[in-house]
Amino acid sequence: MNKFGTEKYIANLSIDCVIFGYENKELKVLVAKSKSGDGFWNLPGGYIMKTESIENAASRILKVRTGLENIYLEQFKVFGHENRIIDSKFRAFLLTHLTEKYNQADAEWMTDRFICIGFYALVEISKVNPQKGELDESLEWRSIKDVPEMMHDHNKILDDALKALRQNFDQKFIGFNLLPETFTMKELQELYETVYNKPFAMNNFQKKILDLNVLERLEKKFTGAQNKAPYLYRLKR
Amino acid sequence: MNKFGTEKYIANLSIDCVIFGYENKELKVLVAKSKSGDGFWNLPGGYIMKTESIENAASRILKVRTGLENIYLEQFKVFGHENRIIDSKFRAFLLTHLTEKYNQADAEWMTDRFICIGFYALVEISKVNPQKGELDESLEWRSIKDVPEMMHDHNKILDDALKALRQNFDQKFIGFNLLPETFTMKELQELYETVYNKPFAMNNFQKKILDLNVLERLEKKFTGAQNKAPYLYRLKR
Repeated sequence: MNKFGTEKYIANLSIDCVIFGYENKELKVLVAKSKSGDGFWNLPGGYIMKTESIENAASRILKVRTGLENIYLEQFKVFGHENRIIDSKFRAFLLTHLTEKYNQADAEWMTDRFICIGFYALVEISKVNPQKGELDESLEWRSIKDVPEMMHDHNKILDDALKALRQNFDQKFIGFNLLPETFTMKELQELYETVYNKPFAMNNFQKKILDLNVLERLEKKFTGAQNKAPYLYRLKR
Repeated sequence: MNKFGTEKYIANLSIDCVIFGYENKELKVLVAKSKSGDGFWNLPGGYIMKTESIENAASRILKVRTGLENIYLEQFKVFGHENRIIDSKFRAFLLTHLTEKYNQADAEWMTDRFICIGFYALVEISKVNPQKGELDESLEWRSIKDVPEMMHDHNKILDDALKALRQNFDQKFIGFNLLPETFTMKELQELYETVYNKPFAMNNFQKKILDLNVLERLEKKFTGAQNKAPYLYRLKR
């Protein structure tokens, strides 16, 4: 029998992770489809050990699902409605599945009311190897424009994560966590346009970014036509 | 015997409130001094009932301490370090005090590890009648420049609340919750200067505020010298 909820983790408190990636001018998010067979989608999440901080819990959950360590992550909001309980069909699936593996008390523990701490994470999508959980049929990238209806309030959690991301994106200059180590000014601008879902004037954008004095200019990107090759940049160390 | 932690409230999760008021060009915060006699100061806080949302829990705690309903409040951060446990002297005081009133299990419950959800609140200071809790010797307003050393990480919670307040103050235009219903442009500017702890140029400030188109201009404030009397403003409904 696994030592679980009643001993190892803090009750009634979970972490849900909105894991953002960027690819082909699309902002994407990792979503899991449940094995339950009723089309239940959800955000990856987990619990907090009695012996770990909430930040370490979030990092641990993210490492399990992405294979990455030292991921940029930000706690953005707590979701604590009193009716934040699990869908009855999914609860039935869970109880059946969980009682095969855990004792009755732990299965009940997992289907009780949960207050959820929302974290969002920014990853370089090409480095991620999504690892589905034991209750997942799949774990996949979806464009934020094409996210399925999810369980609980997970669509609301995603919306609020996106709002928080947009608020911090400019102020804290965190977008580089979504890009490879080097990038052209055009690629950086495309990232901003994607996150804010609106165009930026190229000259203004370039001036604004360079004025921040956080980028280092490297050699030109080789494209075959040397005179038109754009410069590569990377974040200053 | 009171029905308490083990039945009524969610374990290991608390709410701490940073209650901001404004008076005499000072930003102030409500802090409690403990009865324990060792100079333990703390922010007002409480627990979350199993049957209520975290927002309703925060409103309930605020109403008990201030007498006010419908207070502007904002959830800003969760504090969840694994070593976030109570000072051993204060724990001893608590256990002695609590076991007079509660059973042993509840007293232990209250001195366990707590993950704290931080809320800040903005109140019109003249309307508040501070009500100390059963473990408090006093509950009083202190300028944020003169806050005593507090228990746990409460000084850090205050610092983070102030950062969040400053970030939202401009964007969400929430400062009016700290002022009486009507105010002059000078009084509004003084509030901004106090919160940001820096001067603003009067003409720029007035133009920027009026451009937001959220204020309604009322009659002049009678000061005896009619030609010099400033206009009163209030927030548009």
